[in-house]
Amino acid sequence: MSALLKQRVRYAPYLQKVRTGEQCLDLFKHGQYLGWSGFTGVGAPKVIPTALVDHVEKNNLQGKLAFNLFVGASAGPEESRWAENSMILSRSPHQVGKPIAAAINDGRTQFFDKHLSMFPQDLTYGYYTRNKTNGSNLDYTIIEATAITEDGSIVPGPAVGASPEMISVSDKIIIEVNTHTPSFEGIHDIDMPVQPPHRQPYPHTTSDYRTGLTAIPVDPEKVVAIVESTSGDKVPPNTPSDAQSQAIANHLIEFLEQEVKVGRLPENLHPLQSGIGNIANAVVEGLASSNFKNLTVWTEVLQDSFLDFFESGSLDFATATSIRLTEDGFKRFYENWDEYSKKLCLRSQVVSNNPEIIRRLGVIAMNTPVEVDIYAHANSTNVMGSRMLNGLGGSADFLRNAKLSIMHTPSARPSKIDPTGVSCIVPMASHVDQTEHDLDVIVTEQGLADLRGLSPKARAKVIIDNCAHPDYKAQLQDYFDRAVFYNTKKKSLHEPHILKDVFKMHLNFQENGTMKLDSWDQKF
Amino acid sequence: MSALLKQRVRYAPYLQKVRTGEQCLDLFKHGQYLGWSGFTGVGAPKVIPTALVDHVEKNNLQGKLAFNLFVGASAGPEESRWAENSMILSRSPHQVGKPIAAAINDGRTQFFDKHLSMFPQDLTYGYYTRNKTNGSNLDYTIIEATAITEDGSIVPGPAVGASPEMISVSDKIIIEVNTHTPSFEGIHDIDMPVQPPHRQPYPHTTSDYRTGLTAIPVDPEKVVAIVESTSGDKVPPNTPSDAQSQAIANHLIEFLEQEVKVGRLPENLHPLQSGIGNIANAVVEGLASSNFKNLTVWTEVLQDSFLDFFESGSLDFATATSIRLTEDGFKRFYENWDEYSKKLCLRSQVVSNNPEIIRRLGVIAMNTPVEVDIYAHANSTNVMGSRMLNGLGGSADFLRNAKLSIMHTPSARPSKIDPTGVSCIVPMASHVDQTEHDLDVIVTEQGLADLRGLSPKARAKVIIDNCAHPDYKAQLQDYFDRAVFYNTKKKSLHEPHILKDVFKMHLNFQENGTMKLDSWDQKF
Repeated sequence: MSALLKQRVRYAPYLQKVRTGEQCLDLFKHGQYLGWSGFTGVGAPKVIPTALVDHVEKNNLQGKLAFNLFVGASAGPEESRWAENSMILSRSPHQVGKPIAAAINDGRTQFFDKHLSMFPQDLTYGYYTRNKTNGSNLDYTIIEATAITEDGSIVPGPAVGASPEMISVSDKIIIEVNTHTPSFEGIHDIDMPVQPPHRQPYPHTTSDYRTGLTAIPVDPEKVVAIVESTSGDKVPPNTPSDAQSQAIANHLIEFLEQEVKVGRLPENLHPLQSGIGNIANAVVEGLASSNFKNLTVWTEVLQDSFLDFFESGSLDFATATSIRLTEDGFKRFYENWDEYSKKLCLRSQVVSNNPEIIRRLGVIAMNTPVEVDIYAHANSTNVMGSRMLNGLGGSADFLRNAKLSIMHTPSARPSKIDPTGVSCIVPMASHVDQTEHDLDVIVTEQGLADLRGLSPKARAKVIIDNCAHPDYKAQLQDYFDRAVFYNTKKKSLHEPHILKDVFKMHLNFQENGTMKLDSWDQKF
Repeated sequence: MSALLKQRVRYAPYLQKVRTGEQCLDLFKHGQYLGWSGFTGVGAPKVIPTALVDHVEKNNLQGKLAFNLFVGASAGPEESRWAENSMILSRSPHQVGKPIAAAINDGRTQFFDKHLSMFPQDLTYGYYTRNKTNGSNLDYTIIEATAITEDGSIVPGPAVGASPEMISVSDKIIIEVNTHTPSFEGIHDIDMPVQPPHRQPYPHTTSDYRTGLTAIPVDPEKVVAIVESTSGDKVPPNTPSDAQSQAIANHLIEFLEQEVKVGRLPENLHPLQSGIGNIANAVVEGLASSNFKNLTVWTEVLQDSFLDFFESGSLDFATATSIRLTEDGFKRFYENWDEYSKKLCLRSQVVSNNPEIIRRLGVIAMNTPVEVDIYAHANSTNVMGSRMLNGLGGSADFLRNAKLSIMHTPSARPSKIDPTGVSCIVPMASHVDQTEHDLDVIVTEQGLADLRGLSPKARAKVIIDNCAHPDYKAQLQDYFDRAVFYNTKKKSLHEPHILKDVFKMHLNFQENGTMKLDSWDQKF
């Protein structure tokens, strides 16, 4: 037992339960229901998952020692190894990484994709374990801690995620105390689940509101093992912004400036939500170098770009459920811990993504879809309607409830044979996660479409005119004109579609590698 | 001025402003933005709309005196006459009636279809009037009152709807005091809009919670006319339940009993939300004659069936934003006013449909779609993807945030040539309003599909097996099997679809009058 571990674990009885990963192997049986801490690839357990997958590889137990796995969102590289070894029977509510996506898309893993704010509550309702034969909820929750308080409560690391809910419904708990990562004590604000009819309002009225609980309470009797973990999170480098994403950010910032000017937003805007990826990074960079001051952030995940945002002086406070930093980012973060920890708070994903608070605060939400259609439905999850990318995440939690719901995307993406082979603006989204009732603004590097208060036909005009790539403008306009003509006879002109043609761009991509059609009469 | 009017208007200065409908005609100009009170066909203004449409008919002003019209949801028969005379340039957020649907579907009226909880707040943000040239928000709000208090506040009738928000952003206000309808004073609980960043939590923790404000405050300076109205609301008779809807209700009640038995619901359930129509009526009848006691209702509209529900003794309290009763129903209601008014409360639609409160209370939401697909997306609005029925209403407010989100529908409906020509279970919904991430249960007269925690493929199995009409079971299973085969090669097995075939049932209906295909190879 390392001196560091003794120092981090301030509840003495736990020190009797210190085990290695290998010593825990016997606890795990095929078909069990497991919870892991973690969110967006940080704060997930490492030792036990590695011991288990080593065991499976060594003994050729692929598919024979497999689990129903729940993580707040995506876990770290250990999850990829589990997927490669067919150790995940079912998975909810979100994932990132080629091996886990492959397992879902080749049918080895049953994936259930749910709003990140709702997954933890539905888990506590027993919805995901209703077919379990032994009646209990989760068999084990494996949670990474960076410290244990005097009463045995768990201080998480860079992610809170669904840990409070998992711990509250788990038969047994294993705590991995990470002694490589500095203690995050003081940065969390924990809400424990309360069920209807006993729920009270969330009191949060500003981004920096704290209820005051800084560790997750746990019944020490349920803790069956304490395992020391000595390796940090491995976050791949961020995709840098480029000319295209900067053009998107510029349109967006100009729009926000205009909204302030006409009085629909205050000068310091409302709390911002921003996703992951190079467009999100460009937006954060753009805001950091804009004239906006005293900004706040209410989001689900913070990335390296937020460190620059803080340093620009424009950002007063940021809150999320995880802080997903690269190794360099974490170094900067720890070196300025005193400053950042005053301006930053990590909450459970039920709170960070809560409709109640997002709506109350008037959050400005910005996310990237797979594709949007001319009537403003968005596909966030399934390529060509069938192939899962990462899952819905919190996109719909934010976009449904925000004061301004913004989707940003390149107007087109390259295919194998055509630099603009995939139009991100299509006649009908091949899968719908956000509906036309949820989006206010669509923005591409071409321009911005302000959809507020517009009928579907008016929306189609502004989306095609302002957002579509020039290579697709005429083709989309042609579809729309034909749909109007076709539905005039049928008196179905609210949202004109020709169901026979609606996926021809997708079909041409599948057959010929580009969404560019010879003509709308082309047959498939 | 009638004695009744004097008695109802307790703020003397208003009595100087009494006018007839005709005396108000000059106030109205083509292109103005108007708010009307009303929700689900009750509580809308009658005198001014009738005077205006008479004026248009008399002077052949069709299309020349037309307005941008906002009503909380649907208005009464006056709206139909406006639509017939092309008096509605644009309309939001919901409508009912053949003439207004016809105007939308033949392109005369631009319709913007929005969540009923969000429409009023977006109106106050100025989103719907952002292209107005004179800078103000609504030009006039015409609101039906059943009394005026000593300080000039408005006591609505059977609907609160969006009136508080409309009044707060309207340049001028006209009050129609309805002296035919008894005063509804005491039955309302009014919340006035507060904008971010000043919003506080809604304090509601039970259905019967009251903030205590019973009338809508108004700046008397803005009131330009008081008009006496002497005709009641005209609500068509309710569609009675039948064997099919009773079968649906029975499946549903059995399911709820089972949920209580396993401990996922308390014995008196959680507050119920129920829509309009014969299935909703059958469900309410079923609950009234079930063993459930001490039930409560948190919904958007109450119908005649709720009077029986109260009388059964099983219902303790009900709240909504409107009470839409037939003439007979209103008679029963008024005769037992003292009893009902203690057990009933009408709120603004922002509150009745609020995600914050729906989620906190753990509401059980039940709604009827146009169609659902095998992966549990629902179409609530657009027949064959294009033709608007009534709009989204509050369905997504409730289904997204409820503890149990239930869609009930017949498994099939008749077409002109085939008694089961339209399957309500389809491969892909031709329009999506509720996503797969939002629905827990689908129920038809055939049976119930419990989708909680299931992957898309597992959902398809249980929906086809339990819910599809026998005439379509094999055909849907065939689609699914082919989609699995097709996507196995493509490694896209998360939610298997064949985009080329996905709307063939709809296309066959359009061309041949039935969704029954000869084969999936049929060409269109």
